[in-house]
Amino acid sequence: MTITASQQAGTSNDDARSFLHDFRSMSTYGATAGGGVDRQAGTLADGQTRNWFRGLVEGHGFEVRYDAVGNQFALLELVPGAPYVAVGSHLDSQPLGGRFDGAYGVLAGAHAAIRLKERMAALAATGAESSGAADARPLFNIAVINWFNEEGCRFKPSMMGSSVFTGKLPAEKVLATTDPSGTTVREALAAIGTVGDFSLDVAAYVEIHIEQGRSLEDNGLAIGLVESTWGANKYEFIVHGEQAHTGATVIADRHDALLGASSLVVAARDIADEFSMDDHAVITSCGEFTVYPNSPVVVANRVELLVDVRSTDPDVLAAADAELHRRVAQIEGRASVRIERGAEHVWAAKAYDEAGLRLAAKSAEALDLTYGTVRTLAGHDSTNMKDIVPTIMLFVPSVDGVSHNEKELTNDDDMLAGVDLLTELLGRVVAGEFVPADRPSE
Amino acid sequence: MTITASQQAGTSNDDARSFLHDFRSMSTYGATAGGGVDRQAGTLADGQTRNWFRGLVEGHGFEVRYDAVGNQFALLELVPGAPYVAVGSHLDSQPLGGRFDGAYGVLAGAHAAIRLKERMAALAATGAESSGAADARPLFNIAVINWFNEEGCRFKPSMMGSSVFTGKLPAEKVLATTDPSGTTVREALAAIGTVGDFSLDVAAYVEIHIEQGRSLEDNGLAIGLVESTWGANKYEFIVHGEQAHTGATVIADRHDALLGASSLVVAARDIADEFSMDDHAVITSCGEFTVYPNSPVVVANRVELLVDVRSTDPDVLAAADAELHRRVAQIEGRASVRIERGAEHVWAAKAYDEAGLRLAAKSAEALDLTYGTVRTLAGHDSTNMKDIVPTIMLFVPSVDGVSHNEKELTNDDDMLAGVDLLTELLGRVVAGEFVPADRPSE
Repeated sequence: MTITASQQAGTSNDDARSFLHDFRSMSTYGATAGGGVDRQAGTLADGQTRNWFRGLVEGHGFEVRYDAVGNQFALLELVPGAPYVAVGSHLDSQPLGGRFDGAYGVLAGAHAAIRLKERMAALAATGAESSGAADARPLFNIAVINWFNEEGCRFKPSMMGSSVFTGKLPAEKVLATTDPSGTTVREALAAIGTVGDFSLDVAAYVEIHIEQGRSLEDNGLAIGLVESTWGANKYEFIVHGEQAHTGATVIADRHDALLGASSLVVAARDIADEFSMDDHAVITSCGEFTVYPNSPVVVANRVELLVDVRSTDPDVLAAADAELHRRVAQIEGRASVRIERGAEHVWAAKAYDEAGLRLAAKSAEALDLTYGTVRTLAGHDSTNMKDIVPTIMLFVPSVDGVSHNEKELTNDDDMLAGVDLLTELLGRVVAGEFVPADRPSE
Repeated sequence: MTITASQQAGTSNDDARSFLHDFRSMSTYGATAGGGVDRQAGTLADGQTRNWFRGLVEGHGFEVRYDAVGNQFALLELVPGAPYVAVGSHLDSQPLGGRFDGAYGVLAGAHAAIRLKERMAALAATGAESSGAADARPLFNIAVINWFNEEGCRFKPSMMGSSVFTGKLPAEKVLATTDPSGTTVREALAAIGTVGDFSLDVAAYVEIHIEQGRSLEDNGLAIGLVESTWGANKYEFIVHGEQAHTGATVIADRHDALLGASSLVVAARDIADEFSMDDHAVITSCGEFTVYPNSPVVVANRVELLVDVRSTDPDVLAAADAELHRRVAQIEGRASVRIERGAEHVWAAKAYDEAGLRLAAKSAEALDLTYGTVRTLAGHDSTNMKDIVPTIMLFVPSVDGVSHNEKELTNDDDMLAGVDLLTELLGRVVAGEFVPADRPSE
């Protein structure tokens, strides 16, 4: 057996085994034949995972509460009456998603909190003085949060639970949101029974997540310190054509919604390619594309599709966005369709807290873990949280950068190194190294 | 009231009123809010329409039988033991289809047969000699056929019933075909109860249908005599990509099935435009396009789509088809996907019976109806039937060429003129003017 990062960092084999054991148990909920999981928000499999998680943390003395939109709070009281710092991510997944995306971060958060609690108990039992930063006297309590519906596949938009928590979306609107079969979030949450009226103020937020890219792997780093999000403009387009017979209708008479929508998908990729000649500063995607009536011999009368444009540079993002809208007008002409722009979601590129980056770096150095700064292309619940409280976001490597795929993989050693770092960092945050304990809660 | 074509042709107002009355009754089955019908093959609405039709023709002394794949035969015996000529079309529709496509032809066939029967009865009652071609002594019996699943939207392929009847598809394969929810044709037919083990040899086939194009309207003609079908190559393509996160996966790492499929849709239109610079000799379409897993934040791992290429000229069709396949290879490179070609259906451009064209022209002249020859872009059951028996195909005008759309419209006068012509023509066919009565049945 080779020496692993976690062994270097002094974690006990018991701690490592315990984490990996729990991770494998968790991954059985919604397990798919292809080695991934399907735990879309508010489904039975999501509910089972949430209840399994509740059982796990209650066994370690946490108290579990839910808010009105199903965010799950596992509360660990270290200092009665003290404010809370939160650590979390999400247990829901894509259909045919991987086992690591989100779930790793929630479990890592719980294990970090459990380790801190056990160290405190050991210190109290021996009466020894604190021997390091991670063992310093706590000034905060800890909430491990499992955010509802980060993925946004069954119910849109993504990052739903943290958007409500951070005041970006009204709870009532979210509860009335329907999935494609007409079930509301309210009904789905009631069905799995994990909803309540709890609310919590937190003083700071920490999240760890798999990278879902390959920059850590390519650079041989154990840990990524997320310095900023990419900006993202997401649009729902509705292409309106006119239903016609595919055989009998001559081209000149067609108003082909499928041609219009397909042209938009191709244009989005063209824009990514054109803007990224030098530095890959623009990424465009279309992940959902639904054709009506979708019959083999009918020219489509409507296509609904989502297009998103992302960039780290706000000026480049604005230029790419303008180009997309110029192309929309061109496509309307060529395909003889009308393209309606429905809902839009815009996230500006934003930096994470600099003091948090420094503290995370210091924690990694204390454990001899290699690290570098990265940007996140994907949205995370921390993207919301950083807008209301000081927030730290960490990444661990993803093999080949594969994500939202059953083949998603983070090696055990990389997972364990992440839990070690999260424990070290959370210990420092709880000890007041990130935000002061007298900081007014928000 | 203006003088209509049918009045010029000497049809009684009772006949006209009776046809329009029945047409309106029929159009209530599966009626949609937008003025069309939704009677996809083997659905409840299709079953209701078939039973309504059975009641109508049984009331006029027809006997109704079904074959193993649900083709409905309304038999009118005029000459005991004589061979049959068939007239027909289909009562099923597209989802949100029009009231006229197919249904007009079935009802027109039934009314033509009913009128011939009544004229024979009137002649027999008066003992008068036959006064014209349409009243000549019949040498054939008449079968009005409602073909199962001409549209091919719920169950693929289209023209299913007539394909089995003409030996192009095995009945067992058709019965095992499933719709998207997994229901088989066998189960759907059993559910609506219109299936049996009848079989019939026919000596000739006549079909009348709405044009679904605008050439008759543009040229001010009442009747189109279909001289040939367009050739059509239809392909099922499956684009294989790899599931990934839309946000986190850089463009270079993507294998985007949606981009590949969209590029194919755009390429198909490009080909139609390029080949049709001069004479619009090529039409391409994509009517069905299904994305997996179709989640907003996932790069698609698979898209299934149907692409068809049609032309009147076999050489042009072959060249357009070769160009399509050259583009497929290009697209595989650009989108980093693999494009699999699944099932294909190829119909060569074929001429209808020349003697039939002459007889239809003679019949139209006898009624003073304006007519011209046309080609059909769409497939019809007659496309199958003409490969096994002498076949005549007639069109009546479609307003603005709109079809496979709730707004599909053929004016009453045009419908009535078509029924008159069909009656005249069917009378001549039954009297032996098209095929000899001693022709061995096939």
